[in-house]
Amino acid sequence: MDLHDALLEKLKEIYELLKEGKEVKIRLSSRGFLNIRFDEVKGLIKLGEKLSEREFFNAAHVRRFVQTILVASRVIKLLESGKHASQREMYYQLKHHLPFSKENTFECEAETIKAIEDLERLFRGKAIREQFHITADRRGALFGDIVIVDKSIPGEFAEFVPAKLGRGGWAIPSTIEEIEIKDINADYVLVIESAAMYERLIEEGFPKKSRAILITTQGQASRGVRRLLNRLRYEYNLPIIVFNDCDPWGFYIYFVLKSGSMNLAYLSEKLAIPDAKYVGMCLEDIKRYRLTNVLEKLKEVDVKRAKEMLRYPWISRFEEWKRELSKMIELKVRLEQQALASKSLEFVAEKYLPEKIENKIFLP
Amino acid sequence: MDLHDALLEKLKEIYELLKEGKEVKIRLSSRGFLNIRFDEVKGLIKLGEKLSEREFFNAAHVRRFVQTILVASRVIKLLESGKHASQREMYYQLKHHLPFSKENTFECEAETIKAIEDLERLFRGKAIREQFHITADRRGALFGDIVIVDKSIPGEFAEFVPAKLGRGGWAIPSTIEEIEIKDINADYVLVIESAAMYERLIEEGFPKKSRAILITTQGQASRGVRRLLNRLRYEYNLPIIVFNDCDPWGFYIYFVLKSGSMNLAYLSEKLAIPDAKYVGMCLEDIKRYRLTNVLEKLKEVDVKRAKEMLRYPWISRFEEWKRELSKMIELKVRLEQQALASKSLEFVAEKYLPEKIENKIFLP
Repeated sequence: MDLHDALLEKLKEIYELLKEGKEVKIRLSSRGFLNIRFDEVKGLIKLGEKLSEREFFNAAHVRRFVQTILVASRVIKLLESGKHASQREMYYQLKHHLPFSKENTFECEAETIKAIEDLERLFRGKAIREQFHITADRRGALFGDIVIVDKSIPGEFAEFVPAKLGRGGWAIPSTIEEIEIKDINADYVLVIESAAMYERLIEEGFPKKSRAILITTQGQASRGVRRLLNRLRYEYNLPIIVFNDCDPWGFYIYFVLKSGSMNLAYLSEKLAIPDAKYVGMCLEDIKRYRLTNVLEKLKEVDVKRAKEMLRYPWISRFEEWKRELSKMIELKVRLEQQALASKSLEFVAEKYLPEKIENKIFLP
Repeated sequence: MDLHDALLEKLKEIYELLKEGKEVKIRLSSRGFLNIRFDEVKGLIKLGEKLSEREFFNAAHVRRFVQTILVASRVIKLLESGKHASQREMYYQLKHHLPFSKENTFECEAETIKAIEDLERLFRGKAIREQFHITADRRGALFGDIVIVDKSIPGEFAEFVPAKLGRGGWAIPSTIEEIEIKDINADYVLVIESAAMYERLIEEGFPKKSRAILITTQGQASRGVRRLLNRLRYEYNLPIIVFNDCDPWGFYIYFVLKSGSMNLAYLSEKLAIPDAKYVGMCLEDIKRYRLTNVLEKLKEVDVKRAKEMLRYPWISRFEEWKRELSKMIELKVRLEQQALASKSLEFVAEKYLPEKIENKIFLP
């Protein structure tokens, strides 16, 4: 599907109808709570078939309708020029005063984001913001023995190996649609919540010894990281293994990577990795590695979060995760990645990860 | 100064005194508010000459005393092994139960951080945490036509050009002490608050056209970014120009880069760049570039922050900044980098920055 032509076609159609004074509406995937469902076969959070209609000749709809059209017309220009814009740039590009009225096209960035999401929903999740050349916030870094080719800078050809960039690694950009991977000298991807652990494993020479590509999300994964992981899994056939803190936040980061999020449910096919595995940290580690002395107390708000997570069908379908979360609620403790340093700095790279990964001691 | 030997010497001395049951104390730069002063000649926030004493045979001091010694002894091992540890790893490595007591050595990471800072203050700011091989959080990316050599990974030699890494650039690590720069094909460094603007300038080919190295801080600059900028300025003689949002937060990020912070006043010589210049955004831009229609409202908490900043001598000594802040308090508006997109996506790279940088239209 050529997005540019599809969008142009759509806008022309609307224009013709409006010119004739006819009723105009657009249909988008409904993102209401009732339309969010969990696809057990695919293991993905998805939107159902329900559609929302937005009509031009409807006082309650017209503002959002026009905003979506404004974003669409801007996207056509982006695609024609080959340029990308951040959502904040989109906001400032499109914000203007409407003549003969007291209205601005957009009052705040949040309105622009909603209109961008509308555009994604207009395509029922078959196209993502990045394909419209709208970029999201970037975060995260990659270290590994692969050859990346990035043709996205006009006139510049970039080809590089992120394992040859010292301790730093490659800063993962907001958009990775135009990236190709040529050679892969690694067996799997290890996704790591904290940048400090990523640096630990680099220092220990873990990527080479274990033939791993390391990616740190630095907290919740950015869209760029999620899309990159999805491509590494399904285009380049690399297993994805996740290594987070043992607390509701670390678990949740994992499940967003694995099953998608309710907020962006219409994009799960492009962003999620349903067969990702979780190597740790988990409460089972306490006994296995004698870590009772480095447990930290869980806050009440985290206990509440753990209880909520137990109610999500994409989590509770796994007995192992039900057990982990129930135990966490009972013991009210958390266990961080860095707690492994209480054994020794090398422990995580020489014992913990090799033992668990070689013997496939994963949570699903 | 060999830090390893200096530390070992210090610890041996303390050990000998303790063995003989003699009084032991260590002297550190006092970080009390009264000891913070602004060095007008150097343009740096610094600690004065006042010292704090910490005694072993003093119930109020002994806990912190022991914690500092524990950190020091661990640092000796780090320096001997050549390894680095994050502050969170230090916490878990040192946390243990004291026999015959109800006490733990450390109760939380904050205590570890204080002990690490004590060690820096013991050296009166002549040595920084990174030289003790203790790493801080990382954040930020670099794009530019320079050759970086990083010898910090055992057995790996890394040499690369961050302008050849596509849109991503190089992820700036937490420690850049072991980095050398071989070739520099650039005239200055442009520091940018937002990653989206950094990506915009890369897309526009700005680094090549303007012979600039781009660094995005992604908000408040990490210690790694601050140290890297300090080295780029004083070891490699590159001017530093800062490009932030026009709001108290953007201004404050600039002044921490330029003059140091009250919190880490004892480290200003290693981290700050007193002759950094500020290219924008500023309120003067509103008229110069006709940006009245893209102003955003300032929150009350930001107005309060602007008033506070007016009272800092390292800010108020500049008439230009007094004018900016007073005007901001009066108008209660902010102006973001991305607001330039209201002109066109190219505007910032083709007009705004070249015009201001070539004509040296800077705030001091």
